[in-house]
Amino acid sequence: MGSFNIHPDFQNEFSYATSPLDPEEFRRQGHMVIGYLADYYQNIEKYPVRSQVEPNYLRSHLPDSAPCNPEPIENILRDLQKHIIPGLTHWQSPSHFALFPCATSTAGFLGEVLSTGFNVVGFDWISSPAATELENIVMDWFGKLLKLPGSFLFSGGGGGVLQGTTYEAMLSTLAAARDQMLRKIGRNNIGKLVVYLSDQTHFSFQKAAQIAGINPSNFRVISTTKDDEFSLCPNSVRSAIIADVEGGLVPLYLCATVGTTLSTAVDPLGPICNIAEEYDMWVHVDAAYAGSACICPEFRHFLDGALSTKPEILRNQATDSKQVVDYKDWQISLSRRFRALKLWLVLRSYGVVNLQKFIRGHVNMAKHFEQLAAMNKRFEIVVPRKFSLVCFRISPSAMNQNCKILSTEEDVNLINQKLVESLNASGHVYMTHGVIGGIYFIKFAIRGPLTDYRHVDMAWTLIEDHAEALLKAS
Amino acid sequence: MGSFNIHPDFQNEFSYATSPLDPEEFRRQGHMVIGYLADYYQNIEKYPVRSQVEPNYLRSHLPDSAPCNPEPIENILRDLQKHIIPGLTHWQSPSHFALFPCATSTAGFLGEVLSTGFNVVGFDWISSPAATELENIVMDWFGKLLKLPGSFLFSGGGGGVLQGTTYEAMLSTLAAARDQMLRKIGRNNIGKLVVYLSDQTHFSFQKAAQIAGINPSNFRVISTTKDDEFSLCPNSVRSAIIADVEGGLVPLYLCATVGTTLSTAVDPLGPICNIAEEYDMWVHVDAAYAGSACICPEFRHFLDGALSTKPEILRNQATDSKQVVDYKDWQISLSRRFRALKLWLVLRSYGVVNLQKFIRGHVNMAKHFEQLAAMNKRFEIVVPRKFSLVCFRISPSAMNQNCKILSTEEDVNLINQKLVESLNASGHVYMTHGVIGGIYFIKFAIRGPLTDYRHVDMAWTLIEDHAEALLKAS
Repeated sequence: MGSFNIHPDFQNEFSYATSPLDPEEFRRQGHMVIGYLADYYQNIEKYPVRSQVEPNYLRSHLPDSAPCNPEPIENILRDLQKHIIPGLTHWQSPSHFALFPCATSTAGFLGEVLSTGFNVVGFDWISSPAATELENIVMDWFGKLLKLPGSFLFSGGGGGVLQGTTYEAMLSTLAAARDQMLRKIGRNNIGKLVVYLSDQTHFSFQKAAQIAGINPSNFRVISTTKDDEFSLCPNSVRSAIIADVEGGLVPLYLCATVGTTLSTAVDPLGPICNIAEEYDMWVHVDAAYAGSACICPEFRHFLDGALSTKPEILRNQATDSKQVVDYKDWQISLSRRFRALKLWLVLRSYGVVNLQKFIRGHVNMAKHFEQLAAMNKRFEIVVPRKFSLVCFRISPSAMNQNCKILSTEEDVNLINQKLVESLNASGHVYMTHGVIGGIYFIKFAIRGPLTDYRHVDMAWTLIEDHAEALLKAS
Repeated sequence: MGSFNIHPDFQNEFSYATSPLDPEEFRRQGHMVIGYLADYYQNIEKYPVRSQVEPNYLRSHLPDSAPCNPEPIENILRDLQKHIIPGLTHWQSPSHFALFPCATSTAGFLGEVLSTGFNVVGFDWISSPAATELENIVMDWFGKLLKLPGSFLFSGGGGGVLQGTTYEAMLSTLAAARDQMLRKIGRNNIGKLVVYLSDQTHFSFQKAAQIAGINPSNFRVISTTKDDEFSLCPNSVRSAIIADVEGGLVPLYLCATVGTTLSTAVDPLGPICNIAEEYDMWVHVDAAYAGSACICPEFRHFLDGALSTKPEILRNQATDSKQVVDYKDWQISLSRRFRALKLWLVLRSYGVVNLQKFIRGHVNMAKHFEQLAAMNKRFEIVVPRKFSLVCFRISPSAMNQNCKILSTEEDVNLINQKLVESLNASGHVYMTHGVIGGIYFIKFAIRGPLTDYRHVDMAWTLIEDHAEALLKAS
């Protein structure tokens, strides 16, 4: 039968030379793209930080339909440089101070590259045992770094999983809590379930609760105040729960935050979890921003009191699976990348000591920025800094020095809005803003892997100059 | 104020030389990993296709906690080769015939590498205009390749989005359908909503429906038969809907499939969509497997009748957003990678002509395998082949030739189960199995980027040899 001969159709159809994964072509193009990215990082300060293009800029530069014939990588990279780069907001720029960390590191990048290259789909153990087992191991490493209770580690009968996004972590725990409760009180009572959050909780949580079928009229958004530094007040939580129970509703789930998106506020986990325990509720701690800072002993106390309410959920799952974990059952999607490779490479390449240094470096640069702002009476800090985000604005008194008539809070908000817009339009820096307790403020987040004191100082000088010009014109 | 001087703390804290994104170090390590992966592809045939490790093999090879100090990339790659590679099932091996496509291509890889390198989070337009606009453009390219109605394209007032997984596509449309209906019939009637699927629909759909809060007793799983080649029968769909309406329930959503996971069955979209339209239901077409084949004109007819039921949903979203699309509102998570880069690179690097060639190459190799199986009377094809999956088994007659007493269907199932297990344990190939209509069968899926006729022929010889040995021993 000639099993080992090349089939005659083969030459005309698809040959190694044109295989989409020909190793030598892979090597050639791979090196080219690594060089392209290294040059990109080298030159990143030359680009405007926030893209300056107008809506729908790209359509006129690209054809209307997919090319029929193949094009060489050189042409594609040329178009990338010419048409795509101007439409990027450069998140790795050292002067990108907007939003929250999304820092690229060489080790993290290589972890993703290896995961993409192996392209295994680790939804169950056998689909690639190493993908599951390495995740078990590095989740225990990470749990130990955060000094979680032993019962949260695989080695203590618990276990962890790398979710793709915060939203997925919220949705999967919310659905588990919901179904556990509905088994007790009956499927038809889904309309009675209540979830609790603060007015500072990330909006992903309401989206997750909506997708999970919780009635939006049962989202209890608890107000925070400046006096509490915009963190959840345990008494308000208790009052809300009591009112719901008296109204015949069923308290289900509370979302607490360590490091809110707007001002990095930290909810008091201990008292909140005690209340939740009384009412047999689930607590989810969203530490998407500040969680990583908790690998430094000086920030670890922010997690105290958490992570002890319902560890039995994970314990049961680990137990049920006997010898191994099938991660598809620990998340909402079936497919998953070999995510653990990235965390493994980052932890090994930098070591705990350098990761702590990196976080402390960012916090110290934020302190430095805070000191610069404090030295200039035209500015004020809006909420106390906890990590590496500084919330500041042009102060009302600076406005009043320049104006003949007393400025309203609205005037102050307006000049700060103009300030952030003019800074971002300059292309030299990128910042975002927030509104808290009626106050419009500017968020200066230290987050880039390439950011150093030089960039912070340059940003501050730019802020002073733009503020000066706006105050003079007002 | 010396804004441009280096801060004195800087030297002791974090310097460019140790920056996690130092461009020269990135270049050096990046080239090393590209070389590592190119060598991996070159040598991939030397590894057992399915990992042969035992559960919990990895823990003894790795330390209990994260290293305190950094380690060089050379050590990490050495450990990767020594401890991780044996625990991989090699999805890119040319002899991996299990499950469904997950083919790595150089262009797809480079698209992901560039996306990882830029590391922009394209949740709204301004976060990186090019990420949104390139996705708009390539989705139109892809829609045209599939010959979708113009109203499904951005250029026709519709639009598309790249979802992370099939599950996400199902959940987001299901939640939209649910909330649209609940606005009409009232939130408290969530328990009345019914979803329809077949016994061949991928299990992700039931998981999505459960997460969306649909009562599991309202999942109508419609049985398929061998006579219908395991596709949904329109009459059965209609009967189920009528019974539910008479019972006071509300038909909401039907999940049809083009290319089922078990046997690549194709549901008759035209008749099914007509019924759904009568009852004002949503239809989701899961074409995760066979959708890409529909870029070849000879397979395109499988999509006929679909994709015209509810185009107004997407139209509204595009209209609401006026000038631009914020993709965060088109998916369930907030964060998203620069996904369009990958599709753009793949379409340009290969051109439509080569992508069609690639798909036809796989289909032709599956035909070739089917012919080999047909020539050997010991085997039979279980369901007709449509794309590049062949469902086969040792036939009952082969069993009866070897046995003194007549084999039961259970005996036939058992020997086929033994066959797939012994093939996978050999390390030379990897296949999975299915059970349909009580018949245990083996799935031979052509899916790898490096697979050619040589590997198909080798696999067939191996199957014959192992079957021969098992039949002799039985």
